[in-house]
Amino acid sequence: MRVTTLFQTSFQSEISCGSVSLYVVLADAGQEVGSGTLLAADSQDPLQKKKKKIVILGTGWGGISFLKTLDCKLFDVQIVSPRNYFVFTPLLPSVTVGTVEARSVTEPIRRIIRKKDAEFHEAECIKIDPENKQVICKDVSELDFERKPEFALDYDYLVIAVGATSNTFGTKGVDEYCHFLKDVEDAEKIREQVVDIFETASLPHLSPEVRRNLLSFVVVGGGPTGVEFSAELHDLVHEDLLCLYPHLKDNVTITLVQSGDHILNTFDKRISQFAEKKFQRDGVHVKIGCRVLEVTNKHIRFKSKDTGQLVDVPYGMIVWSTGIRTRPVITDFMKQIRQENRRVLATDEWLRVKNCEGVYALGDCASVEQRKIVEDIADLFKVADKDNDGYLTAAEFVSTMEGVRVRYPQIDLYMNHNHLKGVIGLLDEAMNAGDQGTTKLDLEHFSAAISKVDSLMKCMPATAQVAAQQGTYLAHSFNHSAQGKPAEGPLRIREQGHHRFHPFCYKHLGSFAPLGGETAAAELPGDWVSIGRSTMWLWYSVYASKQVSWRTRALVMFDWTKRFIFGRDSSRM
Amino acid sequence: MRVTTLFQTSFQSEISCGSVSLYVVLADAGQEVGSGTLLAADSQDPLQKKKKKIVILGTGWGGISFLKTLDCKLFDVQIVSPRNYFVFTPLLPSVTVGTVEARSVTEPIRRIIRKKDAEFHEAECIKIDPENKQVICKDVSELDFERKPEFALDYDYLVIAVGATSNTFGTKGVDEYCHFLKDVEDAEKIREQVVDIFETASLPHLSPEVRRNLLSFVVVGGGPTGVEFSAELHDLVHEDLLCLYPHLKDNVTITLVQSGDHILNTFDKRISQFAEKKFQRDGVHVKIGCRVLEVTNKHIRFKSKDTGQLVDVPYGMIVWSTGIRTRPVITDFMKQIRQENRRVLATDEWLRVKNCEGVYALGDCASVEQRKIVEDIADLFKVADKDNDGYLTAAEFVSTMEGVRVRYPQIDLYMNHNHLKGVIGLLDEAMNAGDQGTTKLDLEHFSAAISKVDSLMKCMPATAQVAAQQGTYLAHSFNHSAQGKPAEGPLRIREQGHHRFHPFCYKHLGSFAPLGGETAAAELPGDWVSIGRSTMWLWYSVYASKQVSWRTRALVMFDWTKRFIFGRDSSRM
Repeated sequence: MRVTTLFQTSFQSEISCGSVSLYVVLADAGQEVGSGTLLAADSQDPLQKKKKKIVILGTGWGGISFLKTLDCKLFDVQIVSPRNYFVFTPLLPSVTVGTVEARSVTEPIRRIIRKKDAEFHEAECIKIDPENKQVICKDVSELDFERKPEFALDYDYLVIAVGATSNTFGTKGVDEYCHFLKDVEDAEKIREQVVDIFETASLPHLSPEVRRNLLSFVVVGGGPTGVEFSAELHDLVHEDLLCLYPHLKDNVTITLVQSGDHILNTFDKRISQFAEKKFQRDGVHVKIGCRVLEVTNKHIRFKSKDTGQLVDVPYGMIVWSTGIRTRPVITDFMKQIRQENRRVLATDEWLRVKNCEGVYALGDCASVEQRKIVEDIADLFKVADKDNDGYLTAAEFVSTMEGVRVRYPQIDLYMNHNHLKGVIGLLDEAMNAGDQGTTKLDLEHFSAAISKVDSLMKCMPATAQVAAQQGTYLAHSFNHSAQGKPAEGPLRIREQGHHRFHPFCYKHLGSFAPLGGETAAAELPGDWVSIGRSTMWLWYSVYASKQVSWRTRALVMFDWTKRFIFGRDSSRM
Repeated sequence: MRVTTLFQTSFQSEISCGSVSLYVVLADAGQEVGSGTLLAADSQDPLQKKKKKIVILGTGWGGISFLKTLDCKLFDVQIVSPRNYFVFTPLLPSVTVGTVEARSVTEPIRRIIRKKDAEFHEAECIKIDPENKQVICKDVSELDFERKPEFALDYDYLVIAVGATSNTFGTKGVDEYCHFLKDVEDAEKIREQVVDIFETASLPHLSPEVRRNLLSFVVVGGGPTGVEFSAELHDLVHEDLLCLYPHLKDNVTITLVQSGDHILNTFDKRISQFAEKKFQRDGVHVKIGCRVLEVTNKHIRFKSKDTGQLVDVPYGMIVWSTGIRTRPVITDFMKQIRQENRRVLATDEWLRVKNCEGVYALGDCASVEQRKIVEDIADLFKVADKDNDGYLTAAEFVSTMEGVRVRYPQIDLYMNHNHLKGVIGLLDEAMNAGDQGTTKLDLEHFSAAISKVDSLMKCMPATAQVAAQQGTYLAHSFNHSAQGKPAEGPLRIREQGHHRFHPFCYKHLGSFAPLGGETAAAELPGDWVSIGRSTMWLWYSVYASKQVSWRTRALVMFDWTKRFIFGRDSSRM
C-alpha cells in the first residue's frame, strides 16, 4: 500500500507497528497546504525503523482523551504533567463541599496507561523549544535530595494540552485573598476553609459583627462553575452545616457577583431566569452588572455598572471563577513562534499550532482559528463551476457544497440554525437571494448567499467537552496516519485532491447547570431546555456514564449514595 | 432521696435534670479519702440550680468515650480540641497507604454531640489554671481576620484527654526529617510522600544510586504501629505500586529498625517470631537491637547494640513510631501541681489528678498510680480481723478479700495468672505459705501471701482500648453521682463505709497485629494466640464493629471492598 501524495514541507519517518513497517510522512502545517499526509511503504531500512516520539503536555481532558484514543504501539509516547492523575473537572464544585470525594473524581495516569506502551513523567514543562524540538521539564517533587531538577525531552510531535489558569483580569488582591476552582487542590482548600469558617464563627469570644463577616461567602463569576458552586455551598450550609451549627443560622450569607446582566448568560434565557429566581428563593444574593474593583483582607469592593455605586462587602471566603488565562509557559512559547499578540495559542482546524512545525495544541490553552468561507469564495466558485461558464447549476452547487461542508463547519451550523433541509435548502436560499430569484448562480449571488454562513462562526467554549473531542479527534488523525490509511478529508479548494483528514468539528452535546436542592437545568442539542428534578437525575446518569474508569464511576456513585444517607462530612482536614 | 455521706473536702452544687433537681456533692480527691461522693436532695434554692460545668480537653478515644457515655443533660458540657473530629486511630496505618480513606476513619464531633446537650470549641488548650478553675484556649483557625485568638473557659470539673505527641528521645534530626504517625494529617502526608517518591524515582534523569536511595523506606520502632505500617507499605508496593511502576521493581527496600531484641515484643513470643519470619520472607529488612543515633537529610545512622557497629542507611522516607511524650500544656500543668518530676500526669485509680481538685485525666496523657496492697496490709488485717484475736479465720479472709478485690485489681490478675480458683485459692496458698501450713492466718502469714499479689501490677499500656475504657468508666461515675445513686465502690480500709465508685480496672480484650498479605496475629484474652488469614478476617470484623458510627462503619467496609476490587489509589494529592 502506498499513498503518493507528498508535500514539500513534509518530513519522513518509519513506524514499526507490530511486524508491519509503515513508512510515514506526517505533513507539516501550512495554513491551507498540509492537513497531514502519509506515505506508507515496506521500507527495509533499519535506521528508519525508529518510532516517532510524541510528547504530550498535560493530563487534563485534552491530553487524556488523546492518550486514550492514541494507538501507543505506533509511537514512542511520553506524557508530562505536574499532576499524576486525571481530574473529572465537572465534579469539582461537588468536591468543594464534600458531595463527592476528591479521590473519586481522579484517576491515576499510570492506571490509564497500564496497558499502553507509554511513559509518564510527573514534572512541569517550563519551556518549549521548537527550534531543537525539545521540551524542558522540571520535577515537582517536594523531596529534599540532591539532584538537577530539570531535564529535557525530545519530540517529533508535541501535543500541548496544558490547560489554563484562572483569570483575575489584574484585579488587586485576587491572587492573595481569593480561592480559585481549577484543580482538586483548590476544591479541597475550599472545603477545609468552609468548615474552618463555621468552627471559628462558633467560638465563644467573637463579636456578632465578626461572626457575620466570617460567614459571608462571596462567589465572583456567574458562569456555570460559579453558579454550581454557589448552589452546592447553599446545599451544604442548609442541608448539613446548619444542623450541626444551628446557632449560626441567621448569620450565613452567600453573594454571587456577576459582571454581565444575567447569571448563566451563555445558556438559554429560560435557564438563566430560572436560576436567578431559584437563587432569590434560596436567599442567595445575586448581584448582576457588578464589576469587582479590588479585594482587601477585609472586604471585596465592587461597582454597579448601572448606578455607579461602590459596594464594600466583608467576607470570610471568596471564590473567584471568572475566566481563564494563558499559562506562562505558553505565553513564552507564543513569543517564540510570533504569536505574541494573541490571547491564546492559535491552531488551524487540524489543531496544528500556527507557525510551528510538528506542534499540536488543544483544550483551554489553544483556540482554533476557523477559516472563513468568504476568504475562499472565488476559488470555491472556480472549483464548483466545472464547465467554466461563469454560472453554477444546481447540481454543481450541491456537489461542491457537499464536498466542502466538512471543511467549513459553519455551513452546517447555518443550515441547522435556519432549519434548512441540507445543501438543497441553502441552494434555494441562494437562488431566491436577489429580487427576482434566479435559476443559475453567478459569483455575486453565490457570494451573497454564502457569506451569510460565516456569521454563525464562533469560538469554541473553553469546556471539557471541546477538549475531549479535540483529543479524540487528534489521536484518530495520528492513528490514521501511522496506519497508512488513505486521505479522508474534504475537497481541497486551491489544490488538487483531498485533505488528509477532516478538520476538527465540535459537536455540542448539551450542557448542564446544577442549581442545588436536587434541581438542574440542561441545554440539550436541538435547542431543548430541561429544568427540574428529573434533569438532576439526567445529570447524575450522564456524569456517571462519562467517568473515565469503572473505578471512578463506582466511587462517584457510592459518594452520591453516601451523601443521601449520611450527609456531607464536616471534618476539617 | 438523700445520701448523707459527706466529706470535708467535698463541694456542693445542684444539678437540674429535666424536672428533677439533684443536690450533688462530688468528692474531692485525697489519695485514699474521697473516691467521689454525692448528696442528692430536692433543694428548692434557685441559686443552686445551675448545672456544674464540665470542660473536656481532647477528642480522642478518652474524650469521646467519656462524652458518648456522659449524660449531658445533667451537666453544662464544653469540649475543646484543635481537631473537630474523632479519629479511629487503629486504622491510621491503613490510611497511610490508602487501604482506607482518611475521611472513613474520622467522625465529626458535632455529629457525635448532635443529639447531646454539649458545646464544641475548635481550639487548643494552651494553659490550665487550676487556681482559678479555668482553661485558656487559642483558636486554631488559619483565617486572616482581626481577633483576640485566646479565650478562657471556666470549669467545675476538668477532664483532660489530650493524648500525647511522638517521642523522639532527643534524637538529632528526627523532628526535621521524619514522619510521625499520630494523626490523620500525618497519615495523609505519608501517603502523598510515598507516591511522590515513586513518581520522582521514575524521572528519566536520575542516577541509579539516587533512585535506590529515594526508594529506601525506613521505619523506626518495632511496636504494633511500626510493624503494621511496614506491612501495609509492603502490601502497597507489591500489590499496587509495582504494577504501575514496574521499572522500579528492584530498587525498593523497606527497613524496620527496632531497639529491642524482637519486634512486637509486648506480644506473645510466638507472634513476634512469626512476624519476624514473615517479614524475612517478604524481604522487609528487620534490624533488631539497633538504636538510632541521628538523622540527617541524607541518611539515618544507627548503632547495633551487640556489635557496636555504626550503620548509615540512605533513605527516601522515614516513619518514626517509637513511643509517646507528654504535651507541653500538660508539662506546664504538672509544674503547677507539683508533679514536675514525673513523666506523665499521675492520677489515682478514680482517674482524679493527684494534688488537684476537680481535675480528671485519662488516656495517653496520664497514668494511673495503682495502690499497692502492701501499703494497706496492716489496716487490711485490722479490718479483716473482726474479732480482734490477731488471727484471720477462713471466713474472715474470704469475706474481706471479696470486699477489696475490686479496690486492688492486682488480686484478680494474680489469681488468673496462677490459675487460682477465686479468693479460696488465694486462701489455700496463704495457709500453705509457711513450712507446715496453718489453719489460721496471723499478720505475718497474711502479709507474706498478699504481698506477692503486687508483683503483677503493671502500668496500663498507652492504647486506645485503655483510653476508651477510662472514658466510659469516668462518665459512668459522673452520671452515677449526678443521678444521686448510692455508693457502689469497694469497702474502705482506713475509714467507714464504702468507696463512692469502683476504682478503674482495665480489662484487656486482646490486641491485633496485622502483618500484611491478608495475615494478622492476635493475642486474645486467656493467653490465646491466633495467627493467619482467619485472624485477618477476625480483625476486619472487630474493627468494623468497633467503629464510632454507622457512617464510618459503612465507609470503612466500602473502602476495604474497593481495595479488593480496584486496588489502592496512587494519585498524589
